Amino acid sequence: MLNYESIYKKGVCIWLTGLSAAGKSTTASALSSRIEELNRKVTLLDGDIIRTNLSKGLGFSKEDRDANILRIGFVASEIVKHGGIVICPCISPYKETRQKVREKIGTNQFIEIYIATPLHICEERDPKGLYKKARNGEIPHFTGIDDPYEPPVNPELALITTNVSIENNLQTIINFLEKRDLL
Amino acid sequence: MLNYESIYKKGVCIWLTGLSAAGKSTTASALSSRIEELNRKVTLLDGDIIRTNLSKGLGFSKEDRDANILRIGFVASEIVKHGGIVICPCISPYKETRQKVREKIGTNQFIEIYIATPLHICEERDPKGLYKKARNGEIPHFTGIDDPYEPPVNPELALITTNVSIENNLQTIINFLEKRDLL
Repeated sequence: MLNYESIYKKGVCIWLTGLSAAGKSTTASALSSRIEELNRKVTLLDGDIIRTNLSKGLGFSKEDRDANILRIGFVASEIVKHGGIVICPCISPYKETRQKVREKIGTNQFIEIYIATPLHICEERDPKGLYKKARNGEIPHFTGIDDPYEPPVNPELALITTNVSIENNLQTIINFLEKRDLL
Repeated sequence: MLNYESIYKKGVCIWLTGLSAAGKSTTASALSSRIEELNRKVTLLDGDIIRTNLSKGLGFSKEDRDANILRIGFVASEIVKHGGIVICPCISPYKETRQKVREKIGTNQFIEIYIATPLHICEERDPKGLYKKARNGEIPHFTGIDDPYEPPVNPELALITTNVSIENNLQTIINFLEKRDLL
C-alpha cells in the first residue's frame, strides 16, 4: 500500500460570480476544456448540471437561493478535498454566502473571479430574453433588476468580457492558477 | 507543469445498502476512520451530512427518494472521477435506482455492500424508535414496514452484523478493496 499523502494534488475551486449573461458560463466552459487539455480532470457545476442533479425542490426565495449556493459549495469543497478541480459559474449575488463557501473550501483553494460585465451590457445581450421578462414583471426577484447583486470587493481576479477576448481571459486565469501552484 | 495522468488514483464509491438500523452508518463511520488511517481522504455521505447539505426540499415520495439517491450518486460520481474515496450508507431500497448510480459511477468503481441484517433484528434494535412509530402508523412509507426494500441480488459484498464483529467486517471490506486495487 502506498503512502498517498505525498502525491495528493492541491484541489481548487474556481468560482465565477456576476450577473446573468455576464459571460460566466462561457468563460467556465472554455476554462474547463483548457484545463482538461492539460490532463487534469474538471467538474463543471454549471446551471444545467445543477438543475438536473442538485437543485430540485429549491425555489427562488433568498433562503432557497442561499441553500442552493451552499449546496454547490458543499460539493465543491468535497471535490477540492480530494485534490480535484471544480469550476462554479454561479450568479451568487450575496457576499455573505460567497464568504461562507470560501470558508468551507479554505481561502487558499478558493479563487473568486468576478465577471464584471456591467448590467446595461448584460441587458443588451439578453440571450435568453430573461432581462426583458424581468423588466415586464414576468420574472420577479431577478438579480440586477429587482433583486440585489453584491459585487466582490476583493476577488482573486476581476475580468471584463466586453473588449477583452475570451482567449486573453483564459490566459489570465491559467497564469494566476500556475502562479499559485494550483495547476 | 506535470503530466498528472500517471498519478491519478483510482476512485471508489463504497455503497452500503440495507434496512434502517441494519448497521450501515456504524460500518461506514468505522470504515471511514480506518481508511483515513491509511492517509487516504474520505468523503462520508451519511444521513446528517446529506440532510444538512443536499436533501433540503425533498420529501419521502418514491420520486423524491429516488431524486435524493441519484443526487448522492451524482456527488459520489464526481468524487470518484477525481480519484477520491466516498462512502455512502443509504437505505436505497430500490434496485433500479442503485443500478442507475452504479452506471453513473462505473461498475468497476462501485462497490455495493449489502448490510444484510434481517428485519426482525433491525426492529429489535430500533435505536431511534422509528420502527415502533412506523408500526403505530406514525411514520408512513417506512422501508421494510409499509414500503418495499429490494435486496441486491449480486452485491460485491454481503455482510452480517449480528454474530460478526465490526472489526471482522472492516477487514473483509479492506481486503476486498485491496484485491481490487482500489486502496
